[in-house]
Parts: sequence; structure tokens; C-alpha cells
Amino acid sequence: MTGPRYTPLTESLPATVPFVGPEAQERMMGRVFDARLGANENIFGPSPAAIAAMQAAAGEIWMYGDPESYDLRQALATDLGITPQNIVVGEGIDGLLGYLVRLLIGAGDAVVTSEGAYPTFNYHVAGFGGVLHQVPYQGDHEDPQALMVKAAEVGAKLVYLANPDNPMGTWHKGADIAAALDLLPDGCLLILDEAYVEFAPEGTAADIDINDPRVIRMRTFSKAYGMAGARVGYALGAAELITAFNKIRNHFGMNRAAQAGALAALQDQAYLAATCAKVAAARDEIARIAVENGLSALPSATNFVAIDCGRDGAFAKAVLDGLVARGVFVRMPFVAPQNRCIRVSAGRPEDVAAFAAALPEALAEARG
Amino acid sequence: MTGPRYTPLTESLPATVPFVGPEAQERMMGRVFDARLGANENIFGPSPAAIAAMQAAAGEIWMYGDPESYDLRQALATDLGITPQNIVVGEGIDGLLGYLVRLLIGAGDAVVTSEGAYPTFNYHVAGFGGVLHQVPYQGDHEDPQALMVKAAEVGAKLVYLANPDNPMGTWHKGADIAAALDLLPDGCLLILDEAYVEFAPEGTAADIDINDPRVIRMRTFSKAYGMAGARVGYALGAAELITAFNKIRNHFGMNRAAQAGALAALQDQAYLAATCAKVAAARDEIARIAVENGLSALPSATNFVAIDCGRDGAFAKAVLDGLVARGVFVRMPFVAPQNRCIRVSAGRPEDVAAFAAALPEALAEARG
Repeated sequence: MTGPRYTPLTESLPATVPFVGPEAQERMMGRVFDARLGANENIFGPSPAAIAAMQAAAGEIWMYGDPESYDLRQALATDLGITPQNIVVGEGIDGLLGYLVRLLIGAGDAVVTSEGAYPTFNYHVAGFGGVLHQVPYQGDHEDPQALMVKAAEVGAKLVYLANPDNPMGTWHKGADIAAALDLLPDGCLLILDEAYVEFAPEGTAADIDINDPRVIRMRTFSKAYGMAGARVGYALGAAELITAFNKIRNHFGMNRAAQAGALAALQDQAYLAATCAKVAAARDEIARIAVENGLSALPSATNFVAIDCGRDGAFAKAVLDGLVARGVFVRMPFVAPQNRCIRVSAGRPEDVAAFAAALPEALAEARG
Repeated sequence: MTGPRYTPLTESLPATVPFVGPEAQERMMGRVFDARLGANENIFGPSPAAIAAMQAAAGEIWMYGDPESYDLRQALATDLGITPQNIVVGEGIDGLLGYLVRLLIGAGDAVVTSEGAYPTFNYHVAGFGGVLHQVPYQGDHEDPQALMVKAAEVGAKLVYLANPDNPMGTWHKGADIAAALDLLPDGCLLILDEAYVEFAPEGTAADIDINDPRVIRMRTFSKAYGMAGARVGYALGAAELITAFNKIRNHFGMNRAAQAGALAALQDQAYLAATCAKVAAARDEIARIAVENGLSALPSATNFVAIDCGRDGAFAKAVLDGLVARGVFVRMPFVAPQNRCIRVSAGRPEDVAAFAAALPEALAEARG
């Protein structure tokens, strides 16, 4: 009896996970976090209308979800002034990134991203045999020009750019992103990850023609809409590209209650605005706490704040460990010099208070 | 401006969907189905405890699901007398089949299934460039020996076998499946799709060592547990194979409420038993209606009944169209001679009554 024969690519891949979940950390620690501020979840949660829609749909969960996510795509199309043919709904941006990489990237194909940007994208690129080329951040911002120049240099088929950025929370004006497109080489697609765009200042979303074949945007109900656990993301782009997802996606992959919840969330824009205001206030409070402790906070257009701990990555990691040990779940950037920071998600007053209480002790311990 | 450069494989694939959803049919017809008996959904729905768990989790949907599905895997492991390392939880069997094909199948790799068996599996095989070899049903049963012999003949890396079978509802004794394994060639993995096994007679689940590297089983909360819209499936197999899913799966792909609902559903085995009894009664009633209309029903170990319409595929399709036009959603097998049948899911008395009312008219119309 012999085991299965994997593909050579499968054989070459490690069994890994882009992020260890907080539940796994809790199991290791033997205690539950007091404040869950590490995964940029939106603790303010979804609109009550969305919760009610999901609860109602629980009673109808014996039915598969609509494989076309028709109602949600119609509503998004109306909202955005585009057609449903420009929208594909999927299992979070993570799921959509996987499909997109699969559509375009085979063994040896070049892909460009920023060093320290979203690890799950890199995971998908590796998973399909792509070759990742990385450019450094520029002053804690992703560098659109450098990304495009690198893409031309290596003949990339895909470039990844998050605006606003994760993990730093920084952002570019949409007009600057649009202008940088002039540098994108022929036959290269820009993934513009706008997961956090609802939190950002007006003008952050680039004004790019939906039919422009050079760009696909990714958006989500996980962040501003407060539904990370529902797994509803969507991609916007030219109809030909969007249709290509139908060649490979898991057509019956969407949770039916999540579809209903996302639709209801979309229809409650007043709640969304109120959430964004709460998030802005929490960001301010987190920045105030940082300063109070002799640290500094980076300006943020997201629902998290990168706090500059003022020394190197080892020091920031010590601060992070101290916070985690005190029941406050946070994460931090992976590469220097961004890893001088810790990343703290906006939370309710009680969550932020738990962070405020733990930080001085964690800092004192790290300064040892 | 040029568009993106797809992989050659992507270019070669059609934009397709293994099944058109009933919602799409409803939109085309401009009316809602009175009875939804086409997708083998379990209309009796999940345990009230599962609904309550999903409703409670809706309020916590701001959190990502646990990427390890730890609690659910622990509970399944205890139930099955295996370890969590033998279990991977995924976005329905459809999602898990996609991951598994990706792990094993590259361009030109041979795969074996039955002609007329699960189209979504074939979709995944095509989507990764595999070459599908098909063997015919034998007396409306999948033919384990013929599948294994074909696998040896073509050097297959994967064989797909559903027990009980979909779309015919027939089944083999587990012992016969286990015995057929002797014919499986070295280095070939058998996918044993047991989506409907909870409905089947004792002894249908094959007694195969969980560490046997030749077999992976797929099970689901979509059928007997009544949670198709939640998207929770699981695969059981040797730890090495199960771990390989962690190389490529969407780690944060599970809906958090669905995880909670599946756990609660698993813990209510009394409800499961009651559901299976209701399904058995509905199967009997559907068979009785078939006979009353001069047709015959195939014995079924699932939650659906294949009704032999007594003529060819065109006739069965006319009967199906007549049912659909009368508000009764059903489907039918794709290939001859199985396509002499229509496939009717077990439902509540009112659903089955709607079928009973529509069938004589649909038959009369089809007979012209």
C-alpha cells in the first residue's frame, strides 16, 4: 500500500498558515483574551439588521445559497453604478485572491508585492507556483511607482497593492494610484485591495473605469461592515475578467445566511457611518495611549493603528508578547523597519481600556 | 491597454457551473417554486440546537472563524474514534474536492469516475487539467470493480466513488467497497464520497482503517444534518494526507456561525435519527406516488428517490419540465440509461403533496 501521488508543486509546499488564529493562542495559553485587537476584526460588529437577517436565514439554512449571489450583486451594482457582470462575490477576499492567482499564475510566473504586505496573498502565489518579487515600503507606505517599475522589470502578470495598507494603516490618494497605472506594463493586472477603504478619507478609492482591464479591486464585508466571520468578499473589474472566475470558483461556496447578512448590512449605510465614526474615535484613543506611554502612532485610514515602539523588531515583539501575556491580542508587521511597530485594532472603550492598562507593564517588561 | 494574461489552462476552460441554482430558475420563470425537491437539500432542516447556535453566533460574526475548526474536529474525532489529525473541515464537500484535486492532479493526470456521477468533481478535475476517464454504471449502481480496473489501466491518481450514489440513490455494502480496494493500483487514491451515508442502512459505511493511505472519505453537514447553506464538509483520512490540505486551503474560509451550528448539530444525534426516519417515510411516499402513476421508484439509501419514467431521457426531461412548470423543482441524471429517471428529494408532507399533485399532469403532458 502506497500513499497518494501529489503534484510536484504540492510536494514542494510547506503545510503552513498565513496567520495563527487567536483561538489557537488561547488554547496554548489556557486562557481567553480579554481584548481581541490583533486581527483587525471590527468589534463594533454588523448592523442589527444584518444580524437579524442572518438569524432569520438560520432557519432556512437547509437551502444552498444562490450560486450567483444575485441579490447581493444587484445591490452592489446599484450602489456602485456598475453592472452585476462587473462583480464576483466570494468567500472573503482571501478566497477571491486564491481564485485570481489560480486564473493567472502558473509555475514560474512573476508576481510583485511589497515586502511585508499581506501574507495570505503570498501564500496563494506560492501555492500556484508563482515567483514573488518584493519591493520595500517607502516611509511606511507601499510604493505604487516602485511596484509598477518592478513589475515591468520582471515581466509580472500580477501586482498586489493594498490601499489603505495593511499592516501599517497608511494610504495613498486614489488619484496617485490611478496615475501610477501609467507605469504598469502591458498584460499585467493590478490587484487593488481596498479591504479597509470605507474607513479612509474621501478620495482614497481610486477613480478607475470599471472596464479598465488593468485593474481588479477587492472589497469585503469583513472590516467596516463587521462581518469577518461570515466570509463575504467581492471583486470589481471588467466583465471578461469577472466572468473568468466562473471557470474555477466553488459556485456553491457561499454561506446562505452570510449572503443575506451582507445584503442587509449594505442597506444600512447609516450604521456603517456610525461604525466608522466609532472606529475613528477608537483610533484617536489608541494614538493618545501610545503618546501617553512615550510612543508614537502612525496616522491610519483603517480600523487599526500601527504604534511605533521606537526601537527594533525584537523590542516590539517583546512589547507584543507582554500584551498577549496580559490577555490583549495584538499582532505586528513581519519585516524591518516596519516591525518596530505593533498593530492594534480599534475596539470598544472596554477593549481599548484593556490595552491601555496592559501597555505600561508590557513596555516596562520589554525595557527590562 | 491589454487585459490580464491567463494561464493556458484557464484559457482552455469554459465559464460554467456544474448546477444552475433553483433561484436562477425562479428568476427566469418569474415565480417561486412551491416545492424545492431538486438539489437533495434536507427540507427538515437542522436541529433546533444548531439553529440556536447559529443565531447566537450571528452576534459574534465580527470574529473570524477558528482556522483550525478545533472544536468541531475534536467532537468529530471523539465520535468517530479517530484523532483530529485525521480530519479536515472545509467549505462543503465541493470545497474539499477542489482542494484534494489540486493537491494531486496536474496537467494530463488521469482520474476515474462513473459516467453520470457527481459533475462538480469533474469540474474540479477539468479545472486542474486532469484527464477524466469514465466507466458506466452497472444496473444503476456505480461499479467499484470497474472503477478500480479502469484506474489500473489508465494509471489514475484519483478514483471517485459515491456510496450511497448520487444521482441514483443506490448503494453498496461497505464490505464490498473495502474488498474492491484490493484492485486499486499503487499510488492511486480512492475518494469515497459518503455525503448521504447517514441515511443508508447499517453496514453501508465501509470499515476501512483511518490510516489506510489509499482512501479519503468525504462527509457533510449539508444532507442528513440539514445545513446545505452553511457549507460545512469534512474529509477523513491518513494524517499525512489530511495535513497536506494545510498547504493550500483557505485557512480562514469557514463561516464562524456555520462552525458553531455544525458542532451543535453533531451533538443532537436524537434529532438526526428523527430526521432520517422522516426522510425514510418521505421516500416511501414518493415511491408510492410513482407507482400510483404507473412508474417505478429505485430503492434509495439517500434523501432522494430516482423515479424511472419508463422511457428515454427525452421523455424524462419532458416530465421534469412539466413538474418545473408547475412549481416543483426536481432534477434528473445526465446520461443514458440513468436519464430515464427523474430525481426527487425527500420533503415535508406538503412538499411531497405538491409533487403528487403535479406529477399526473406533467406525465399526461409528456405523453402528449
